[in-house]
Amino acid sequence: MGQGPRTVREAGEFGLIAELAVALPEAARAGPELGIGIGDDAAVWTPSPGEAVVVTTDSLVEGIHFRLDWTDWLSLGHKALAVNLSDLAAMGAVPRIATVSLGLRGDEPVEDLRNLYRGLGALAARTGTRIAGGDIVRSPHGRALHVTALGETRGGRVLRRDGARSGDVVAVSGTLGASAAGMALLAGEGDRRAATADVLVAAHLRPEPRLALGRSLVEVGASAAMDLSDGLYGDLPKILAASRVSARIDLGRLPVAAAVRALFPERWLDLATRGGEDYELLFTVPSTRWDEVDKATRDVGSTVTAIGEVVPATAAGPRMVVFGLGGGEREIAPGAFDHFEGDG
Amino acid sequence: MGQGPRTVREAGEFGLIAELAVALPEAARAGPELGIGIGDDAAVWTPSPGEAVVVTTDSLVEGIHFRLDWTDWLSLGHKALAVNLSDLAAMGAVPRIATVSLGLRGDEPVEDLRNLYRGLGALAARTGTRIAGGDIVRSPHGRALHVTALGETRGGRVLRRDGARSGDVVAVSGTLGASAAGMALLAGEGDRRAATADVLVAAHLRPEPRLALGRSLVEVGASAAMDLSDGLYGDLPKILAASRVSARIDLGRLPVAAAVRALFPERWLDLATRGGEDYELLFTVPSTRWDEVDKATRDVGSTVTAIGEVVPATAAGPRMVVFGLGGGEREIAPGAFDHFEGDG
Repeated sequence: MGQGPRTVREAGEFGLIAELAVALPEAARAGPELGIGIGDDAAVWTPSPGEAVVVTTDSLVEGIHFRLDWTDWLSLGHKALAVNLSDLAAMGAVPRIATVSLGLRGDEPVEDLRNLYRGLGALAARTGTRIAGGDIVRSPHGRALHVTALGETRGGRVLRRDGARSGDVVAVSGTLGASAAGMALLAGEGDRRAATADVLVAAHLRPEPRLALGRSLVEVGASAAMDLSDGLYGDLPKILAASRVSARIDLGRLPVAAAVRALFPERWLDLATRGGEDYELLFTVPSTRWDEVDKATRDVGSTVTAIGEVVPATAAGPRMVVFGLGGGEREIAPGAFDHFEGDG
Repeated sequence: MGQGPRTVREAGEFGLIAELAVALPEAARAGPELGIGIGDDAAVWTPSPGEAVVVTTDSLVEGIHFRLDWTDWLSLGHKALAVNLSDLAAMGAVPRIATVSLGLRGDEPVEDLRNLYRGLGALAARTGTRIAGGDIVRSPHGRALHVTALGETRGGRVLRRDGARSGDVVAVSGTLGASAAGMALLAGEGDRRAATADVLVAAHLRPEPRLALGRSLVEVGASAAMDLSDGLYGDLPKILAASRVSARIDLGRLPVAAAVRALFPERWLDLATRGGEDYELLFTVPSTRWDEVDKATRDVGSTVTAIGEVVPATAAGPRMVVFGLGGGEREIAPGAFDHFEGDG
């Protein structure tokens, strides 16, 4: 060992696996309901009888999805799991286990990786997710985290994207734009010293998967749902295309935090509609059930806001029309945010 | 579009997802037993009643696990799935679905990615695996493939690493060293023009997961199993440590293809014991059941070779002792192959 902190290369792949397992809180480790945990060829898990398994996978690549000068390792661990649990929330599923694959350069201090697992483990323990093994590979040209989360249905039903019907209410949970505002602050835009700046940065670094809300939405009969990772203008068209319907959105009703409006007076609408990474739920529900949705979501400590309505698609196909905030009706061009556009 | 072939960046993330889904053979696509396939937030799958779910994940990183000047994209797709299915084989599980996460630079021709999915899809269709969605992310500093495979048990039992008992036979399927010999040939060592060279290169680029053998081993009551990814000397100590036993291996009985011996007369033993990536099964079985194992494995078209026996661990812990090939008994130092050692 050298003078500096012990690195991944010094610990070795198998030493690191053992240390990371210990960094997890007890409640996040492979427990007795898992036949085999970290260290065997695979993890084994018996789903509840009659329920379906829900599987999702999401990757975070250094320089694209995270920067180590912007995030701490605890937050990075949290986010790597959170973005996957958010997909389970959008399906109305209950998380059960997750596997983690790390691509590392080898020069990382082991303590950083322990913090990654602590952040991941804290969210896992709080959401009933067991970390069931994974893989650590050498990736000299850039770090990457790949998480696969497995959940199960309750009552056999899931929230899909293709069930929105004309007349349904379009709604979102929480607020929009906080994550994008937080990222802008990290990039040196806006007033980082403002009292509310930390809340926005936290929204970007440590999004909270809306698991309880997703389960409520299954129970009250939401017709379609997804999580907002690519922004309202990027994601709503996916529901509209899958359901073959159009939508009218009242921009005056978008829930946007006062801090976002205050720190980005020129850009707040853009952050709220195109910013992405809010990891709130976007959903549709028959208007007759709206009161029930509103009550059920308050019961699980969430807030939801109706922002528009589903209308029939035109002959030209699904359209997203917005109005309000002093402007007339205008169509937002389809075409979701493309991760290969821009600086690629 | 430019003059050259259409690239991933030109197709866009969502265009690419649609094209790759079509590149899969029908039998590998998310079918009616999957509630939702590629394109929703997650995939849904109902396991057979009473069976456990088996989950494994493995990553291939460019420059570490594959080189595009050595492999074609069809073979790369095959291998990315094969190394995961090999883990399921080592558990005695039946594959059901897999998710694929691709980290791409963006300048790849779409046709290359289609070939990746064709290679992956051909193996998936042949093994009953459905490709159930995934994720495509931008990874400018190096490509990576991350596959998570899900299988299920038959009869609720799996092959573990911790069940080897003193007196058991130690055995391997197929032959050892062919993959490492193939990699050496790709690296310019040995005689690439030899008639048998292509077989060795194919063993490296397109390993075959031993799924039928794994299921047979569950049925005949093998006591422990794993797949050989890090070579006999890297992997056997993992079974010994998990089972708290030692082993004596007769090097004279190792199944090594004549081509490996002929092309690498000085190195064949090293390739067979330390080479890695054979993706054969290494297992232990009570000696009373050996004849049954031998017959059952021939019934599924595999070959198995007894290479040694499990003996009690000494006070110092599990040891791996080898003999034969004219040498006396000697201990092989523990310490598996470490992916962060070497050129890191």
